[in-house]
Parts: sequence; C-alpha cells; structure tokens
Amino acid sequence: MIITMNRILVHEEYGMQFEETFRNRAQLVDGMPGFISNQVLRPTSPGDPYIVLTQWANRQHFEDWVHSEAFKEGHARSGTLPREAFAGRNTLELFEIVLDTDQPDLVPEPHGVPFNPHG
Amino acid sequence: MIITMNRILVHEEYGMQFEETFRNRAQLVDGMPGFISNQVLRPTSPGDPYIVLTQWANRQHFEDWVHSEAFKEGHARSGTLPREAFAGRNTLELFEIVLDTDQPDLVPEPHGVPFNPHG
Repeated sequence: MIITMNRILVHEEYGMQFEETFRNRAQLVDGMPGFISNQVLRPTSPGDPYIVLTQWANRQHFEDWVHSEAFKEGHARSGTLPREAFAGRNTLELFEIVLDTDQPDLVPEPHGVPFNPHG
Repeated sequence: MIITMNRILVHEEYGMQFEETFRNRAQLVDGMPGFISNQVLRPTSPGDPYIVLTQWANRQHFEDWVHSEAFKEGHARSGTLPREAFAGRNTLELFEIVLDTDQPDLVPEPHGVPFNPHG
C-alpha cells in the first residue's frame, strides 16, 4: 500500500478558493482501480504547503491513474486558480506504508525502485 | 480533525533499523485521548524523509500528548539509533483536515492559530 503527497504552496489569501476547487471537483479519482482514500490538508504554519494525500493499493494503480484520461480531465478542470495563487512549484512525494495502526496485519510494501515524479 | 507529520531524514543504510524501532515501539500513543491512527511511511526517492503521520481528533489532543509523561517515555525509548543515522533535523508539520473521502460528512477543522513546532 502506498501514499502519494502532492505538496502545493498556496498564498494564504487564496487558501479558501483553493479548498473550494476540491469541494467542487469531479470525483474522478475515487472510482479508479486501487484507489483507497484521499484527503486535503490545510497547513497551520506560514510557509507550509497544502497537501493532497492519496492512498493506493499499490504503486501500479497510482501509475495507471497518472496515465489515465480521467487524470488529464481532472487536472484540466482544476486549473481555475490564477498563477499568482501559488508560491512555488508543487512537489510530489511517494511513500510505501511500513506500519499502520488501522491495519495491524499489513504486509509492508516491498522496497520499490526510486520514484521519478516527472516520469 | 488534524494530522501531524514528523519528517525524519534517515540515511538509506539505516532505513531497516529505523523501521524496526517502530515495530518494537511501546504502543504509548495509541491509548491517548483523541488518538485516531498512526502510520510510518518509507520514502521512495533519495533525499526524501520518512514520515511518521498521526491523526488526532483535534489539536488539543495532540498538544496534551506532547506534554504527557507517555510522550517523554516513548521518545526516551526510541533513541536507539546512532546520531549518524540521521541526515538532518526533523521537521514537524501540523495540518487541519479539510476534506476526506472516508468521512464525507466531516466538518472541516476551523483555522487555528499558527503552529509553533518548538513551542
């Protein structure tokens, strides 16, 4: 099981508008094979990014989503904020779940090859 | 509801040993009031940190944990890795959950005051 985190630097005055785009988003990712859950996290310290956190059954499911038509469609729709809303480039991080109190019997994800967020 | 993330830079050759300390850790945090879940996340890209992610009912529960005897005890026990295992200082981030597909009726956490990780 894996978790992806998209770290998005949003200027404070655009925060509410940024959250609104997720409330109104098409639920495109939710139906993808291997999708488990998705959260939007608001920073509490100035300079910290918003995080869009998604849990997937495994890395292949995530890769399939990134190369899907639904992904392109979702990202085309979500580009409603002006460029000046963002304080920098996104950073995409990918993690393998080692331990989870909600899943005591979880078999830790095997070590994968390094993740290339621009691949 | 909030999420804390402790971002811990671990040199690759100490990764397995780092994970082992969490497998063998005392389950001190699990019983704290307001504790929801805890995950240990392994990075997949060189230079990315491990993340210890904890979900809490609200910020006060997290603050109570940080100032508890159980917290001191847990952190005293976990200091079994040599200093050279770490590639830098930890970063503690605190987020308010805005949206969660697992909780469609979640009332988003209200905006809190800025979080001071050294407070």
